[in-house]
Amino acid sequence: MSGSEEDKSDTSPMSGSEEDKSDTRPMSGSEEDKSDTRPMSGSEEDKSDTRPMMLDPEIAARLKRDANGLFAAIAQERGTGKVLMLAWMDDEALARTLATRQATYYSRSRGELWVKGATSGHTQYVHSVRLDCDGDAVLLDVDQTGGACHTGAHTCFDADLLGPV
Amino acid sequence: MSGSEEDKSDTSPMSGSEEDKSDTRPMSGSEEDKSDTRPMSGSEEDKSDTRPMMLDPEIAARLKRDANGLFAAIAQERGTGKVLMLAWMDDEALARTLATRQATYYSRSRGELWVKGATSGHTQYVHSVRLDCDGDAVLLDVDQTGGACHTGAHTCFDADLLGPV
Repeated sequence: MSGSEEDKSDTSPMSGSEEDKSDTRPMSGSEEDKSDTRPMSGSEEDKSDTRPMMLDPEIAARLKRDANGLFAAIAQERGTGKVLMLAWMDDEALARTLATRQATYYSRSRGELWVKGATSGHTQYVHSVRLDCDGDAVLLDVDQTGGACHTGAHTCFDADLLGPV
Repeated sequence: MSGSEEDKSDTSPMSGSEEDKSDTRPMSGSEEDKSDTRPMSGSEEDKSDTRPMMLDPEIAARLKRDANGLFAAIAQERGTGKVLMLAWMDDEALARTLATRQATYYSRSRGELWVKGATSGHTQYVHSVRLDCDGDAVLLDVDQTGGACHTGAHTCFDADLLGPV
């Protein structure tokens, strides 16, 4: 183990500079989401879903976000153990996921929250969320309804084997 | 499926602007790696490991990198299916991983490549690498020697269950 590395898995709050940057994050127009979903602010969505939801401050203090205020979220299928997809969350996406048990991510291309499967019906029921040792990724244990991938495939990793051959 | 989303799992090359930005990426000093490793450029490393290694242009053309030239890499344990860790790669890290079958990542804090387990011996032998549908994440199927986490835990997700409770 490198001497410069510390165990960050404890629950002590981080510095005050680790604020939620969701109000100031730039949007990246070049990135597509990997799943068919309806944004929460869509006109067909129940407006009650768009109310702000606060993340538990004790959890928020343990997150390490990127420059856009986001962290990675891995969805793994309960039972099969298959890694279904990698997506992104901000604080509110995590708060909603924990509160509703429906996987909710942050769309980098649209700059808004989306409930996975809101359009397709290919929802993810969340059994647990685990934070990694340095606070920049969460692992969701989910029941996947239908295909997780917007292509219809069961996982987003089914189609492109790079190697080794 | 949303009409604005396309299947990116084919092998057609992307635009010319998707170049390797590894020479110009800024380093982030605020981020720690999650695993105990020795950098490839370390004085104790075999210098033959530091020679540049090019990624297959057909693979490079399918990658979608972040502003720092990086993409996410998920290591999953063969046999158990456990998600061990999330790390980051640049093009050369992926090239080395494919060529050597030893998981090799890019350290955001040190701004250099590292072979997982080079110091600790907790290496990852890579059986396969899969790219996801929108090209911004890879999934590694690995044999993990020892604990994957720098804390000694088997995975980086063992310690911090956020909920739901």
